[in-house]
Amino acid sequence: MIIVGEKINIITKKIAKAMKERDAEPILDFAKRQVEGGADFLDINIGPSKKDGPELMEWLVTTIQNEVDIPLSLDTINAEAMEAGLKVHKGKAIINSASGAKERLENMMSLAARYNSFVIGLTMMETGIPRDANERMAIAVDIIQGAAEQGVPMEDILLDPLVLPISVAQEQASEVFESIKMFQQLNEPPMKTIIGLSNISNGVPEETKPLLDRTLLSVCYGYGLTAAIADPFDKELMDTVKTIKIFNNETLYCHSYTD
Amino acid sequence: MIIVGEKINIITKKIAKAMKERDAEPILDFAKRQVEGGADFLDINIGPSKKDGPELMEWLVTTIQNEVDIPLSLDTINAEAMEAGLKVHKGKAIINSASGAKERLENMMSLAARYNSFVIGLTMMETGIPRDANERMAIAVDIIQGAAEQGVPMEDILLDPLVLPISVAQEQASEVFESIKMFQQLNEPPMKTIIGLSNISNGVPEETKPLLDRTLLSVCYGYGLTAAIADPFDKELMDTVKTIKIFNNETLYCHSYTD
Repeated sequence: MIIVGEKINIITKKIAKAMKERDAEPILDFAKRQVEGGADFLDINIGPSKKDGPELMEWLVTTIQNEVDIPLSLDTINAEAMEAGLKVHKGKAIINSASGAKERLENMMSLAARYNSFVIGLTMMETGIPRDANERMAIAVDIIQGAAEQGVPMEDILLDPLVLPISVAQEQASEVFESIKMFQQLNEPPMKTIIGLSNISNGVPEETKPLLDRTLLSVCYGYGLTAAIADPFDKELMDTVKTIKIFNNETLYCHSYTD
Repeated sequence: MIIVGEKINIITKKIAKAMKERDAEPILDFAKRQVEGGADFLDINIGPSKKDGPELMEWLVTTIQNEVDIPLSLDTINAEAMEAGLKVHKGKAIINSASGAKERLENMMSLAARYNSFVIGLTMMETGIPRDANERMAIAVDIIQGAAEQGVPMEDILLDPLVLPISVAQEQASEVFESIKMFQQLNEPPMKTIIGLSNISNGVPEETKPLLDRTLLSVCYGYGLTAAIADPFDKELMDTVKTIKIFNNETLYCHSYTD
């Protein structure tokens, strides 16, 4: 189970301010604490950043990787900003993300091929959200074709079935489970999958969020999930990840494994 | 997800004393509190009870079902005690359990057929515990054949892959996952499966047990698990069960669902 830390995100006021002012300290603080929490990648979400996207992304990637030895997930629909980040990134980055939308798919897959990156394939169209697992599968097939056209290896794609908030789209949770199962069958070895975990608890009372997040993660792991974009500051969640890694023989059990 | 409450068990001193003295009160207290916690069945474990097994099981079944409207899982390898309980049981009971051992398999399947009960098929032999998913599958096939010979319908069998303590048999957890997946493929519609959940955390520090239990349950649900023998007094575990039921659209989400 691979965890992509979600905390460096322009929707957080503190981070937005630091990004705007090129103030490294709050960003490095979030980076270090996520790594300590157990993150394997860090997501860097700058939003569309139409004006200074390329410069901002380049600054973020170099600033973080100069201090913290971890690969990043570059999160923007701005293709120029994406490329600026990939150019300076050390190690194998994640492109977050391609989708079923034609131009975005071509742009991001072309970058994935050129920079030898992982790429998240979000099974969503410009026209709206998929209604069930079958619609997600149809988009996944488009994404895979788009990747093949640009020469992106299947093992570098992480298909994302688009988790929706339980409070407004309860019936979509089981569609996500089904999608994770179906996506894997699109290739041999099975396609990799990823979810944006905290989407599930969007709009839910704060005290219930960790329960929903960690339960979703565990169930999805059972369905074969490879990775999740999630909150490494959530101790209960990260203890759940440690437990899954023990079940999966990735780490050795000891009585103090959650300390 | 079906929960079989595990608390009425002769290994608990208080319950052992109450069983011996035919003192209904502590047993009914445990029964009612497990139902309030969310149990769908109650396991009644009297051990081998060689001396007065039949009389004890009959007393327990009638005493509990006179006060609490819930089906029971009768837990003993004593076939006479099992039959005495089944005779007076109201509704569809669970026989806990048949195994790969020939005599026990014949006895329990014969009772399951005669009393139209569910029956747990524990994939274990007298000679020892299975080493991997393949050995569990071989025993599962024997159990299914034993059931077929006695005319027990496939949908009344709950195959149990035998969860072992993580602290002494870590590598067995993933074998259990694989077994749950493989067992289902033995029939169409898929075979039902069950686990003894708290086995996983046997010998583990008290504060870590709930984490291991609830994570195992969620992961196993993702692998297709039908039911678990578990502790309905564990609030975090039962909140996890409620969350799974929401994901599965068995209950409707509301903000206060864990209250």
